[in-house]
Amino acid sequence: MELLHQLCQIHAPSGNEVKMKEFLLHHVQEQQARWKARPQILHGKGFQDCLLLVFGEPRTVIFAHMDSIGFMVRYGKQLIKIGGPVAEAGYTLVGEDSQGKIECTLEVDEEEHELRYHFEREIERGTELVFKCDFRETEDTVQSCYLDNRLGVWSALQVAQTLENGIIAFGCWEETGGGSVGYLAKYIYETYGVTQALVSDITWVTEGVRAGEGVAISLRDSLIPRRSFVQKIIQLAREANIPHQIEVESSGGSDGKELHYGPIPWDWCFIGAPEDHVHSPDELVHKKDIYAMVDLYKHLMQKL
Amino acid sequence: MELLHQLCQIHAPSGNEVKMKEFLLHHVQEQQARWKARPQILHGKGFQDCLLLVFGEPRTVIFAHMDSIGFMVRYGKQLIKIGGPVAEAGYTLVGEDSQGKIECTLEVDEEEHELRYHFEREIERGTELVFKCDFRETEDTVQSCYLDNRLGVWSALQVAQTLENGIIAFGCWEETGGGSVGYLAKYIYETYGVTQALVSDITWVTEGVRAGEGVAISLRDSLIPRRSFVQKIIQLAREANIPHQIEVESSGGSDGKELHYGPIPWDWCFIGAPEDHVHSPDELVHKKDIYAMVDLYKHLMQKL
Amino acid sequence: MELLHQLCQIHAPSGNEVKMKEFLLHHVQEQQARWKARPQILHGKGFQDCLLLVFGEPRTVIFAHMDSIGFMVRYGKQLIKIGGPVAEAGYTLVGEDSQGKIECTLEVDEEEHELRYHFEREIERGTELVFKCDFRETEDTVQSCYLDNRLGVWSALQVAQTLENGIIAFGCWEETGGGSVGYLAKYIYETYGVTQALVSDITWVTEGVRAGEGVAISLRDSLIPRRSFVQKIIQLAREANIPHQIEVESSGGSDGKELHYGPIPWDWCFIGAPEDHVHSPDELVHKKDIYAMVDLYKHLMQKL
Repeated sequence: MELLHQLCQIHAPSGNEVKMKEFLLHHVQEQQARWKARPQILHGKGFQDCLLLVFGEPRTVIFAHMDSIGFMVRYGKQLIKIGGPVAEAGYTLVGEDSQGKIECTLEVDEEEHELRYHFEREIERGTELVFKCDFRETEDTVQSCYLDNRLGVWSALQVAQTLENGIIAFGCWEETGGGSVGYLAKYIYETYGVTQALVSDITWVTEGVRAGEGVAISLRDSLIPRRSFVQKIIQLAREANIPHQIEVESSGGSDGKELHYGPIPWDWCFIGAPEDHVHSPDELVHKKDIYAMVDLYKHLMQKL
Repeated sequence: MELLHQLCQIHAPSGNEVKMKEFLLHHVQEQQARWKARPQILHGKGFQDCLLLVFGEPRTVIFAHMDSIGFMVRYGKQLIKIGGPVAEAGYTLVGEDSQGKIECTLEVDEEEHELRYHFEREIERGTELVFKCDFRETEDTVQSCYLDNRLGVWSALQVAQTLENGIIAFGCWEETGGGSVGYLAKYIYETYGVTQALVSDITWVTEGVRAGEGVAISLRDSLIPRRSFVQKIIQLAREANIPHQIEVESSGGSDGKELHYGPIPWDWCFIGAPEDHVHSPDELVHKKDIYAMVDLYKHLMQKL
Repeated sequence: MELLHQLCQIHAPSGNEVKMKEFLLHHVQEQQARWKARPQILHGKGFQDCLLLVFGEPRTVIFAHMDSIGFMVRYGKQLIKIGGPVAEAGYTLVGEDSQGKIECTLEVDEEEHELRYHFEREIERGTELVFKCDFRETEDTVQSCYLDNRLGVWSALQVAQTLENGIIAFGCWEETGGGSVGYLAKYIYETYGVTQALVSDITWVTEGVRAGEGVAISLRDSLIPRRSFVQKIIQLAREANIPHQIEVESSGGSDGKELHYGPIPWDWCFIGAPEDHVHSPDELVHKKDIYAMVDLYKHLMQKL
């Protein structure tokens, strides 16, 4: 899982995904000769920092967000959140400003409800800080910051190897509520007529969705996708004997939100491995669930 | 009001409106020969589970949402809400899973802030449950679950009988924040150039909007539609002597929200009878307000 | 600053911006002969109460919202808010209903968490009330209700005098969450291919953004715009030696929100003078910051 390890280390908090996009672009250009089919690669003007891979005659698109949660320097030593990271005193944060590389420590002022950094010098206003990557792999699990959603990206890259017809869309801003899926969806719909979407992202281990028991297929979170589409996916997973779990939650959201509320009749479904220690430097995912995730995506991209 | 009674019994929680759509489709196909004009009937590919009726040369569209609130089985005996139903212990809920029909009882665990069902067997994860319909009619009132919005649908069907120019759009997902009005609005605007919309839905009896005193015309809820359009509607209601009440609220929302925030310059207005016991199995509406609602819609579809 | 004084007095709460639009239309028609370039003036059908000025071959659009916060009469003597005004007992509010002009006093019932008006007669349901304008100017500052956003409008009019290529879009509903930027953005993008936007609005004086120290360039509020675009703007401000301050906030929003979530790949940035006593009748802005705002907009409209 060296590729996953690399992905987890890339600095790409919401709004500044350019390094992830460049890494993926380079990776695809290098690897595609070994893939079953060569995709059309779309990026640059009109796509901001997003990246689209279009294979053959697509019927379904996989959305995988590239951005991560993190922190931003406000005024003085204050930090504010980018998205919803866990903020525990002592976490190591890394970044860079015009004075050079930064490795500092998160401080939590409970009384003032304020986050601060501890560092030898003042960091420039507006600098982004992210969790320092401590990648841990065992026979059964991987653990690191940003498995959400570097694992969703990694899974999409595995699917790419054998994909003949379909689109993979690497998007931005998911952790802060979206901002790129709207125009990606529009482009995809208007260019290819595609209205089926799978959201390749990571979900939560809960009392009903357990580590090691398969990839989660979400029947709902704060939004409810069209039931007939999700039922079709569950049926396909069942028939193919791919380990899966049905998720039913009343909160949470994903790139599906932008599809759901947008002006295109998308059928969409969130499908992803569950993780423990969500949005912390210690996100933990079971390898069985990762493999099931890749298997299910490969199957669905053929059958849907 | 046998038709209304039938509508109130149909299982169509948000995301799974297909049965309502099929009922309406069948109803329209059967009834249209008796209508003043035959509509073009649009549904299927590109419309998910929505249904559009296009009469003549439309200038205005009526949006009426087909979906209802309800509950969904989470894990074990837990229930989560679909939309915002009142949840009182003892309510009878009905549904179906692969093991058969279900009629169970709602339990409320105040301590754990949790909803559960009481039933002789475990219900499958993700199963939808809705209020059991107890339809009650008096000389002056109707009472049932789901008058919101089966009454809005029913009213639109009354209007359809004499409608010559206009669109009726039966949509999905309103109770969970929308998801179909965006693409319906786009289709209607791009195909017919229509930018006037009336939201046929049910509102609340309050200290300012009373049962039996006429249909409510909403000057605002959490959103404020363009004032000049609402004022024109109030003026038309006044001139036609149709009993009406001006509603002014700071909260609440409707299908109007998707029109308001979407990329089309819609003039929209919420117009509907007020109900008591909102979002419970005992929604109560005064017949005078129902008749005023139908009268006002008929008038507006001619005059706007 | 007589023009600014005039702008601050115009009744245009969200949803009813027609008087501001008419004032601006008249002003532009009267003034444009003295401007460096004559704009194409777009308004009316398809634009609701908005107004667009298109100069030459535009690359960038300035959005300036015309609407203001205020209050609306609910039932009896109750008031509800339009947007988020400060509500302090004793504020003077003005408006008009069919019985004539109104000048009344705001009452705050702390116990019932209710706002009311004190006036010699009952005011008609749904009537809008706004702060009475008390315009105060010193050598260094201006103070009035509604500097947010009449100052953003005023600044755009200053920029208009010498603008050769660019668009100025006067929009509606910003104070209640938007509603016009979506369709304006769509029209601008589809007609001119423009995807760069500057939000001409007023922000807050805080511990990091101080009165008199320059126009604020926002790196983020509740949303994070694309970092590379904002960095380019900061670089241009720096090179041109225009006094500016970098704003980094975790809350707040602007017209940028509709651009961000819409289906067009906008690069956008909020740029505006900071004010004290936000959303009260006593909004206070330093003149240095106003001049820096105008200077920066003029510079950016040339260089972006």
